[in-house]
Amino acid sequence: MDSKSCLKDVEVETKEMDNRSQSASQQGMHYLHKVGIPPKQNLVSEFTARVKETFFADDPLRPFKDQPRSRKLVLSIQAIFPIFQWGRSYSWKKFRGDLIAGLTIASLCIPQDIGYAKLANLDPQFGLYSSFVPPLIYAFMGSSRDIAIGPVAVVSLLLGSMLSNEIDPSHKAEYQRLAFTATFFAGITQATLGFLRLGFLIDFLSHAAIIGFMAGAAITIALQQLKGLLGIQKFTKKTDIISVMHSVWGNIDHGWNWQTILIGVSFLSFLLFAKYIGKKNKKLFWVPAIAPLISVILSTFFVYITHAEKKGVQIVKNIEKGINPSSVDQIYFSGEYLLKGLKIGIVAGMIALTEAVAIGRTFASMKDYQLDGNKEMVALGAMNVVGSMTSCYVATGSFSRSAVNFMAGCETAVSNIVMSCVVFLTLEFLTPLFKYTPNAILAAIIISAVVGLIDIPAAILVWKIDKFDFVACLGAFLGVIFVSVEIGLLIAVTISFAKILLQVTRPRTAILGKVPRTNVYRNILQYPETAKVPGILIVIVDSAIYFSNSNYVKERILRWLMDEEEKAKVACQPTIQFLIVEMSPITDIDTSGIHALEELHRSLEKKNIELILANPGPVVMVKLEASKFVNLIGDDKIFLTVADAVSSCSPKMAQEV
Amino acid sequence: MDSKSCLKDVEVETKEMDNRSQSASQQGMHYLHKVGIPPKQNLVSEFTARVKETFFADDPLRPFKDQPRSRKLVLSIQAIFPIFQWGRSYSWKKFRGDLIAGLTIASLCIPQDIGYAKLANLDPQFGLYSSFVPPLIYAFMGSSRDIAIGPVAVVSLLLGSMLSNEIDPSHKAEYQRLAFTATFFAGITQATLGFLRLGFLIDFLSHAAIIGFMAGAAITIALQQLKGLLGIQKFTKKTDIISVMHSVWGNIDHGWNWQTILIGVSFLSFLLFAKYIGKKNKKLFWVPAIAPLISVILSTFFVYITHAEKKGVQIVKNIEKGINPSSVDQIYFSGEYLLKGLKIGIVAGMIALTEAVAIGRTFASMKDYQLDGNKEMVALGAMNVVGSMTSCYVATGSFSRSAVNFMAGCETAVSNIVMSCVVFLTLEFLTPLFKYTPNAILAAIIISAVVGLIDIPAAILVWKIDKFDFVACLGAFLGVIFVSVEIGLLIAVTISFAKILLQVTRPRTAILGKVPRTNVYRNILQYPETAKVPGILIVIVDSAIYFSNSNYVKERILRWLMDEEEKAKVACQPTIQFLIVEMSPITDIDTSGIHALEELHRSLEKKNIELILANPGPVVMVKLEASKFVNLIGDDKIFLTVADAVSSCSPKMAQEV
Repeated sequence: MDSKSCLKDVEVETKEMDNRSQSASQQGMHYLHKVGIPPKQNLVSEFTARVKETFFADDPLRPFKDQPRSRKLVLSIQAIFPIFQWGRSYSWKKFRGDLIAGLTIASLCIPQDIGYAKLANLDPQFGLYSSFVPPLIYAFMGSSRDIAIGPVAVVSLLLGSMLSNEIDPSHKAEYQRLAFTATFFAGITQATLGFLRLGFLIDFLSHAAIIGFMAGAAITIALQQLKGLLGIQKFTKKTDIISVMHSVWGNIDHGWNWQTILIGVSFLSFLLFAKYIGKKNKKLFWVPAIAPLISVILSTFFVYITHAEKKGVQIVKNIEKGINPSSVDQIYFSGEYLLKGLKIGIVAGMIALTEAVAIGRTFASMKDYQLDGNKEMVALGAMNVVGSMTSCYVATGSFSRSAVNFMAGCETAVSNIVMSCVVFLTLEFLTPLFKYTPNAILAAIIISAVVGLIDIPAAILVWKIDKFDFVACLGAFLGVIFVSVEIGLLIAVTISFAKILLQVTRPRTAILGKVPRTNVYRNILQYPETAKVPGILIVIVDSAIYFSNSNYVKERILRWLMDEEEKAKVACQPTIQFLIVEMSPITDIDTSGIHALEELHRSLEKKNIELILANPGPVVMVKLEASKFVNLIGDDKIFLTVADAVSSCSPKMAQEV
Repeated sequence: MDSKSCLKDVEVETKEMDNRSQSASQQGMHYLHKVGIPPKQNLVSEFTARVKETFFADDPLRPFKDQPRSRKLVLSIQAIFPIFQWGRSYSWKKFRGDLIAGLTIASLCIPQDIGYAKLANLDPQFGLYSSFVPPLIYAFMGSSRDIAIGPVAVVSLLLGSMLSNEIDPSHKAEYQRLAFTATFFAGITQATLGFLRLGFLIDFLSHAAIIGFMAGAAITIALQQLKGLLGIQKFTKKTDIISVMHSVWGNIDHGWNWQTILIGVSFLSFLLFAKYIGKKNKKLFWVPAIAPLISVILSTFFVYITHAEKKGVQIVKNIEKGINPSSVDQIYFSGEYLLKGLKIGIVAGMIALTEAVAIGRTFASMKDYQLDGNKEMVALGAMNVVGSMTSCYVATGSFSRSAVNFMAGCETAVSNIVMSCVVFLTLEFLTPLFKYTPNAILAAIIISAVVGLIDIPAAILVWKIDKFDFVACLGAFLGVIFVSVEIGLLIAVTISFAKILLQVTRPRTAILGKVPRTNVYRNILQYPETAKVPGILIVIVDSAIYFSNSNYVKERILRWLMDEEEKAKVACQPTIQFLIVEMSPITDIDTSGIHALEELHRSLEKKNIELILANPGPVVMVKLEASKFVNLIGDDKIFLTVADAVSSCSPKMAQEV
């Protein structure tokens, strides 16, 4: 009924318009279309629409529409195990691409896995375990075609740091049990978030804060590697830069082992040079990909020949042979460590999610396919839950390996299966070969890997675009470097939330002026050529008015009024008689907001100033009606555009003059 | 330099415009004003402006501008102790109003104080203490002219509930010590928030949630009074409705004392009737104000005469005589209770703040004077800190007493001083008179007082305006009633935050259509008469694009595109070749937002659709320039209005057809 009456008014006014249009001048009267109130929506449908937009924004049930029951069943299975969908169109050509990519990332991942396990204070084989089972699970359940799954530097550091706060790593059995518990709950967290479609929660970590956090974590990891690189025995357990530097320089007299340094530094140079070549010439991407494995082989051979381990060069020694043993019985399902594992698992799970989803989105955007973030989370969660039961620790998508995967021409997640098989062979047969691998080499490989996490161009861009964002970036970075990884993460999250809250609580307001020779009104700060209209103050409020900012908005508008009245007095201009509020950016309003508008109206009435609203959106109009505010200020005080509002004010002003 | 070049372009185009304007038709070409980039602001000045707007939004230092040093000193003292400012213009007339108002609220507060102290599980005299010292301190430091200070029902309930969770109230000495500790830290919290100008934090508790919380607290308090009203000895310590009903009906056989019920119910009816009279006839506001005192006097006399206490009517018995003893030595400054007191103090302090600031703002708005919220908080904090050292517990502004104060014609905070003096006299001389006062009377007084906290019209308005708000309201209400006060409060805060986050993460987007015979583009859902432009999709995004919603915005726009392409195909209309984004509501954008725009551009390029921006705000333009996005899509793709953008697309489309 509302829309019908709306149309009727439009028809009537349109006829009048036709009569008047002949004589209207160019800057003449605009059609005073009545501001429409959208048809009332059923409460249930409004609620359903809102829930849909919030949780099912990407419309995942679209393919299910109008399908027979058997098809729906098939689609459901394909939704949970996407491999049944893309597997049907698999071909030899695709397998070729996946094979090459899989072998390439396998060569990269094996030395990294051994190194990352050390970062997490676990024995080397656990890294290899985590590159065996999780990628297999992911290949069945995940949807990204380019992501490479396995242990990653930052999550390994985070886990190692948080776990060693609870249990000393030398108590191996308990430490491992807590690691599996944390991994189990990380998986549960990820799967739950995905299942409840709460994936948007990870969007709350600001991009700039992540850049700072990653860079800080990268530097922290690199500093930790100085232990292996310089051959120092006694090293601090803490991760902050002061403690590490203390350990490094404190040991300079007797701790540094020159043979280790020689091996480490030379191969590090080699790896960094290989990385540089790969960047300069995209075709040579495989060079930095196989360089780590080559370094491992060469250095192991060298140490074996020269018996360097007897001269103080630390070696890996023993990696347990054989594939993943079951670890279901090792997970703490009760006792004091249950809560600790839960807490660590939630944090590690969320960070792992952030990385994996970022990688997945990046490559999906590059290759132009859609990625359901929530479905990905379920896959990652399942992968970690199963991993926790097979002696793996938290695995996720790795930036460097995914990039190599992409460049090497992967087609589907089968590249992960290939990598998995290579790791299997390594676990079954090749682990004795790593006996003489010097720790220095693993340190060098990790340093060359994390260097890529430091994204200086991105930080510079953040600085240019938004200084507050840069503060977030810097805060997270310094927090990780000077205090600890958890504190840096906490700073990143807090600053992200603070930014959201500040954005909400202090919306921008501005005064509008008229662009000459048009009927367009724009912000006078942005368009210096605009001129204020004498006697009329036009204000724009750039956000929805909720309880979090309603009081501020009201006070700010009154302050604009005070300022303008002072200026008008000084310039001997007519006093302000009308206040027009441009309402198009005000997307929504709640009881506090309407309350604030009523108080504004009351204050203006006392000063003999009329309050006029221009261009309110649909939602706001409904609420203004429902709260009887429209009755309060009068139906004739709401206009479609600022120009209309100003036109209606001018005659009244002309009378006063 | 930017504004100069901007003006130059405008001049050039204006000349062209003059030539073209003669022949322009009514729906002709608009001036293609170049979208201006505001002049670059110095980083320091930008930062200062932002800090000023966030923390000093009400410009408290305005009066200090251009003043000699001695004047600044005087102004500073007046800022901390406003009494030195309004005291100078004090007059006999004002004193008359304050005297009457003070006496009126004193008569109301004395019985309430005794009752509220019982709510907080403290001895009756502590309620009177808290109506003696805190109002005096407030009169010196506060700025509201109408607020009446003293213990209030909700804060007393909250304190009683939280304190008895930690210490059993029967251990009087320790319980009192914890109460003073909590009061001390409540004051510290309030003063700190005010001093750091973090007052906007209390705005984060949504109005609707407060309505629900207050109503729930009121009902809980009323239920607690059933103990006194029915004369039940054994009563549950819990506050939720199930436990209370269990205590009430479980005791029906032997616990209910008919004499008590007689006294209680009859005077309760009297009080409620007096309240009703006061509401119906504003002139008789003093009736419900003195009714409690009259009830106390009458019932005390009655019990004294009939010796009803021997027949099972519970009486107040002993109220300690004399004014507040010092309690500095009783505050826990160390030990386990320090942290507990801190926690309770912070929560109670924030709730007390919310009440006081709400009252202060309401009356300031009614009497049209300005109130500095942060300065108020400092005053309230100081008042509670001093109170904690003089045997008071948390005092704040009382709704009912402030309303009576206002109606009785108070002029300044001197009414609080008058009330304070009356309480002093009571403490020094009159406490023995309360010996025979039945508890039932106090229960009746409290019930009639809290009934006013249940604001059903406000709740109905919330239901009408915003259903989500109503969920918050209901959640808080049910949480308080069925679980506990703290849980209800937690629910209120959580739902408030969830609403803010949801608002931020799912901004509204809509498709725009052309209003016939104008150059105005409006939301097609709100204005059914608008028509979409064939081949062009015009989208509006109703919020700033930050990391919290950038991904959603991009995906939503692409989904609009998909929907429209399907519809165009079905209706045999030309395919979409242009996507115009109306950017005026996009008040800000960060790195994630620009990233999302770049991805959108890339996706559109793949579909051969041109991306065009219309009407970007100043802040966004600066950032688009800084990030080189403008170079990416081309300078000629940004327009001042949607109409301009559409005009520039049409010729290109005409060629394709």
